[in-house]
Amino acid sequence: MATETVRELEPERIIRLEPGRVVLLDQRRLPEQEVELVCRSAAEVAGAIRTLAVRGAPALGIAAAYGYALAAEIGEDLDEARAVLLGSRPTAVNIAWALEEMRADPSAERARRIHSDEVERCRRMAEHAASLIGRRPLTHCNAGGLATGGYGSAVGALRAAWERGLVESVLVDETRPLLQGSRLTAWELEGLGIPHAVIADSAAASMMAAGEVDCVVTGADRIAANGDTANKIGTYSLAVAAAHHGIPLYVVAPTSTIDLATANGAGIPIEERDPAEITSRFAARNPAFDVTPAALIAAIATERGIHRAPYAESLAAAPAPA
Amino acid sequence: MATETVRELEPERIIRLEPGRVVLLDQRRLPEQEVELVCRSAAEVAGAIRTLAVRGAPALGIAAAYGYALAAEIGEDLDEARAVLLGSRPTAVNIAWALEEMRADPSAERARRIHSDEVERCRRMAEHAASLIGRRPLTHCNAGGLATGGYGSAVGALRAAWERGLVESVLVDETRPLLQGSRLTAWELEGLGIPHAVIADSAAASMMAAGEVDCVVTGADRIAANGDTANKIGTYSLAVAAAHHGIPLYVVAPTSTIDLATANGAGIPIEERDPAEITSRFAARNPAFDVTPAALIAAIATERGIHRAPYAESLAAAPAPA
Repeated sequence: MATETVRELEPERIIRLEPGRVVLLDQRRLPEQEVELVCRSAAEVAGAIRTLAVRGAPALGIAAAYGYALAAEIGEDLDEARAVLLGSRPTAVNIAWALEEMRADPSAERARRIHSDEVERCRRMAEHAASLIGRRPLTHCNAGGLATGGYGSAVGALRAAWERGLVESVLVDETRPLLQGSRLTAWELEGLGIPHAVIADSAAASMMAAGEVDCVVTGADRIAANGDTANKIGTYSLAVAAAHHGIPLYVVAPTSTIDLATANGAGIPIEERDPAEITSRFAARNPAFDVTPAALIAAIATERGIHRAPYAESLAAAPAPA
Repeated sequence: MATETVRELEPERIIRLEPGRVVLLDQRRLPEQEVELVCRSAAEVAGAIRTLAVRGAPALGIAAAYGYALAAEIGEDLDEARAVLLGSRPTAVNIAWALEEMRADPSAERARRIHSDEVERCRRMAEHAASLIGRRPLTHCNAGGLATGGYGSAVGALRAAWERGLVESVLVDETRPLLQGSRLTAWELEGLGIPHAVIADSAAASMMAAGEVDCVVTGADRIAANGDTANKIGTYSLAVAAAHHGIPLYVVAPTSTIDLATANGAGIPIEERDPAEITSRFAARNPAFDVTPAALIAAIATERGIHRAPYAESLAAAPAPA
C-alpha cells in the first residue's frame, strides 16, 4: 500500500457550476500555473473547449452539461446553446451524449449529477481495470482527473493498481504537440506520489523492445460499436508497437464514451487542428486523434466491467448510462 | 523536372577550417537565425559536438577531422585532442573513423578531403537510392546537408528522386525532443523547393494506415556488421509501423557509418542525454538513439550501391572508405 500523502485533485477544483458562471482549472496553463477560467455563457464554455482550457472526453461532456445548464439559468436560447457546444469539438461523443441527457432537464442539479456520475464511473472502472495493470505500464496523453472531472480513467486505473502494490513506475508519453502527458499526467502522478518518467513519444517502441513496458493503458475519446477506439494521436502508433512486442494495450473509459450508433472507426470524425500547433514556420499537418482497430486492443474497461473481443457483443451488453 | 530556384547549402557554409579556427553554422539556432559558431581549439569543437551545434554522423566525422587538424596547426597535444573529440558523443562511429583517418596525416588538406569525400559519397548514394523512393516518402530527424557536411544522405536521396519527378510531397517527422525534423529538414526542403509537411512523430503510423506513406527514408548514426542500424530515437518506432503496414524502410548512409567491428545492434552504445531536453519539471528519460534490427530494413544505400539482406554479406562487400 502507498503511504505517501496524496494531493487530491477535487472534482470541483477541475470544473464547477456557480451562479451565473462555469469555473474551470485552465489546463493550458498547467503545470506552471493553477489558474481558474470563468465562463459566463454557453459560447464562452464552447470557447474554453475549443481552445483546450478543458479537454478529455468525459470532462468535455461535463463542461457541455454545465454550459447548457448555465444557458438555461441566464435565459440564453437553448437551441443555440446546444448548437454552439456541439460544434466546439467533433471527435469525443461525450458532448453530444451529455447534451442529450440535459435536454429533458437543463437544471444545475442534473449537470452536477452528470459530473458526479462520471467520477463515480471512474472509480468503478479503476476497480475493474487495476488487476490488468503490470509493474511498468506506459500511458499516453492525459486520461487523468483533469480529463474526466475527477479521479481519472487510465490514470485512475494506474492509481488503483499502485495502491494495490502492483505498479513500480509509469512511463508517460509526453504527447506532442500539446504535451498533455509531460504537462498534465506527470503533474497528476507527482501529486499522487506515483513514480514516473516522461519519454518522447517516439521512444516508446524502443522501451518496449528493451523489455521495460508491461502494458499500455490509455483513455478514449470515442469507442465505436465494434471496439475501434479514437484517442489522442499516437495511440495507434503505440498499439502497433505493443502488438509487435506482444504487450497488451488496455483502454479504460466510461460507457458515456461508447457510441453504439457508429459501427466502426471509419465513422468517427477526426479533428484536424491548427498546423501552427506543430510549427508556425513550415507546412504541417495536425490530426488530433487516430483510430486504433479493435483487433489491437486487449481489453476495454468500463464501469460495467472488463470487455473483451468480440467487442460488438461485449460492448452492446454495456449500454450508455441512462 | 523541378524548375524552382534552389537555395544551395554549400559545404563550406555548413562547416569549414580557417587558419586558427573551425567555423560552423550553429544548428541549434536554425531556422530562426543563421549564425556561425567559431571554435579555436579541439576542446571547443568537442563542445560544439556535445551541445549539438553540429550533429549528424557524417558531419560529426568532418567536425572531428577539422578539430584534429586545428589542434595540429596550433600545436595542441594530439593525443589529448583525439581523446576530447572521441569523448564528445558516443553513438556515431564516424568520429572514431575520421580520427583514425587523420592520425597518419593531421593536415588541413586531409581534413578538407574527408569533407569533400563525404559530400561526394552523398551524391553517389543519392544516385543509387533515388530509384527506391516512392511518391510520398516520410523521413525522420535531419539526414540532410547539415548532417553530412553538404547535399545530405536521406535528404540527398529525396532531392535526387524529386529532380527525377518521382516525389510528390515529403512527410517530415518533427523529431522530438530537439525538433531536427521541423527545424532543420523542413528548412532544407523549403530551400530545395520540395513540397513537405511536418507531422508529430506519433502521427506517422496513422498516416501509414491512411495510405499516405509510400516509403520511409532515414540516415544512420552507426550500422553494425549485420545491418542493425542505430539512428535518431523514433526510427525503430517507424520501422515497426512500416513493417505492420507493408511499407519499405530504407537507410541511406555513407560507408563511413558502417562499423564492421560491431557484430550487431546490441554492441552499439546508445547515448542518454539530459532529461531536461524532455521536461525540466518532472522525471524523464532521454535516449537519443534507438536500434532498428536489420530484419525491418528493406535496403541500405551507400555510395557503393544498394545493399540488401543478408547484410552480413552485402555490407562486408562495402568496406569503409580508405
